[in-house]
Amino acid sequence: MNGTGSSGGSGAAEREEFAAFFPQIVRDLTEDGLGHPEVGDAVARLKEVLEYNVPGGKCNRGMTVVAAFRQLAGPGQRDPESLRCALAVGWCIELFQAFFLVADDIMDESLTRRGHPCWYKREGIGLDAINDAFLLESSVYRLLKKYCGGKPYYLHLLELFLQTGYQTELGQVLDLITAPVSRVDLSRFSEQRYKAIVKYKTAFYSFYLPVAAAMYMVGIDSKEEHDNAKAILLEMGEYFQIQDDYLDCYGDPALTGKVGTDIQDNKCSWLVVECLRQVTPEQRRILEENYGCKEPEKVAKVKELYSALGLEAAFREYEERSYRRLQELIGQHARRLPRDIFLGLAQKIYKRQK
Amino acid sequence: MNGTGSSGGSGAAEREEFAAFFPQIVRDLTEDGLGHPEVGDAVARLKEVLEYNVPGGKCNRGMTVVAAFRQLAGPGQRDPESLRCALAVGWCIELFQAFFLVADDIMDESLTRRGHPCWYKREGIGLDAINDAFLLESSVYRLLKKYCGGKPYYLHLLELFLQTGYQTELGQVLDLITAPVSRVDLSRFSEQRYKAIVKYKTAFYSFYLPVAAAMYMVGIDSKEEHDNAKAILLEMGEYFQIQDDYLDCYGDPALTGKVGTDIQDNKCSWLVVECLRQVTPEQRRILEENYGCKEPEKVAKVKELYSALGLEAAFREYEERSYRRLQELIGQHARRLPRDIFLGLAQKIYKRQK
Repeated sequence: MNGTGSSGGSGAAEREEFAAFFPQIVRDLTEDGLGHPEVGDAVARLKEVLEYNVPGGKCNRGMTVVAAFRQLAGPGQRDPESLRCALAVGWCIELFQAFFLVADDIMDESLTRRGHPCWYKREGIGLDAINDAFLLESSVYRLLKKYCGGKPYYLHLLELFLQTGYQTELGQVLDLITAPVSRVDLSRFSEQRYKAIVKYKTAFYSFYLPVAAAMYMVGIDSKEEHDNAKAILLEMGEYFQIQDDYLDCYGDPALTGKVGTDIQDNKCSWLVVECLRQVTPEQRRILEENYGCKEPEKVAKVKELYSALGLEAAFREYEERSYRRLQELIGQHARRLPRDIFLGLAQKIYKRQK
Repeated sequence: MNGTGSSGGSGAAEREEFAAFFPQIVRDLTEDGLGHPEVGDAVARLKEVLEYNVPGGKCNRGMTVVAAFRQLAGPGQRDPESLRCALAVGWCIELFQAFFLVADDIMDESLTRRGHPCWYKREGIGLDAINDAFLLESSVYRLLKKYCGGKPYYLHLLELFLQTGYQTELGQVLDLITAPVSRVDLSRFSEQRYKAIVKYKTAFYSFYLPVAAAMYMVGIDSKEEHDNAKAILLEMGEYFQIQDDYLDCYGDPALTGKVGTDIQDNKCSWLVVECLRQVTPEQRRILEENYGCKEPEKVAKVKELYSALGLEAAFREYEERSYRRLQELIGQHARRLPRDIFLGLAQKIYKRQK
């Protein structure tokens, strides 16, 4: 999740408020343990892991919890303590994401993340990073207990994070079996598989989780209302990832801050799936020969093919369709939930350039 | 945890009853997902992961839940449904262990586990095993929800497993920073560090967790009674690991089923810690030069040194002291808990040969 918009309560002031809470999160997770005669050294490691891997992102997922909480909270729920809980739960989502990113980077053999070496690539870390990922995950549940332990919604949040973890792991399995790091097999790429990967690996934790957490925190726990929110948020999640795939190839590195490598990395990207839907047998042969290779000439061949098939225009069409579908879903499903939550999020992600 | 004893409800009939429940566990975790249009293939992978990594151990941890539950349950708590819950929670501990073992084997660069190649060493698996470990962990919480979701003790069990996971991860950090896979530095090995690693990495999940789970299931949830059980069970856990370290060097492979490699693997074993407590500067030099190397001559040099220092006798002394301390702890702390739970466990682990 990216976004340049300032509505939905995620402007500069909200970002600053959110970021300013991180040192408290680190204290919550480490102050009792640092200096402990038995586990002090392990907690010092946890502190390093937190400080290297958790901040540095855009924090849109975490800030969405706080923004949605503010929009949903009744007059009696806006006290400072409740707000601190929302900030803590927001950071739980950032920790949760860090848990997956640290592990995914190892599995994907990635080299950098957010402009720095991946944690496992740092001197002296290596595969010990696997256990560090577990520590990040455990930190989520320690924070939930600390901030929400006595609250009526505590069990809902525990189950929500646990369930979302499982869904994300299923998405990761699908991704790993569909696009193994070093075996190109385009026959595995299909639109249906693509959508399943996006929904499970990204949309649940990035879109449904933050809003659902805020809903539980204000006492909205009916299956119907959660299903309504889910329908809208998963549509947004799909659009978000398709756009991310588009920007990987067509985004301006000066704006996105990264040079895309999905073609080289044999990623099951929306572009290659769309390409496969349209290719002639001859074009498919070109794709087979050039996808998933690091040679710049081969990457250029793939991009030429994308261009010949008009994939930029295809994305624009998809974007318009998705935006209309989203408005319909919000109209249908957001009857009892404030539409601004969804509209604010939509405004942040549609037509973003970074 | 090993053991040849038949008391404490872990004889052949109990083992058979426990093992017979595993197919149900696999069905619980996979039947809704296999054939699912989106995640069917991912659930098929989960099934493979479960079947390769979860059975095949001795199941003493899991069976301890069932045995302790039977000993603690009041007359109104021995119905078939409650027993099925105890069996499911027992398997949760086996899944929980599988989660850690799959990951530890990657971090330790191990080759085999229970006489088969480690999961990550299997053709086509590799580092994808990291996500498979996550799936095993998530399976614990899915089972808890399915079997105990409506029970008054559900939240206690969730928190118990989450907390135990964190403790085990802290223990793994201590182990990794104390005995890195390929850097020998004996100055990091100390008795205090050794005991902290054992307590956090092994004793909590192997000894306290199964009994504590059974206690919660029958409604024993006071901090005092849990602290009492913990004092006894952590002592047992320490003895168990020290004995495991002893058997790695001095056990009969025909009985233990494995050839020890702690010396080659630079493990922070009780033997090397005890050795370091007793060495002269000259002997320490021998240890420095030969520990953590795979050459058989060097391993033999370390074993000679152990022998010269009388470590076999030192273990026997430790064993007697620990056994007496345990009896005292049971006398002091098991006032309100049936002593047989602890005595049955003790009988299974003290003076075992495999």
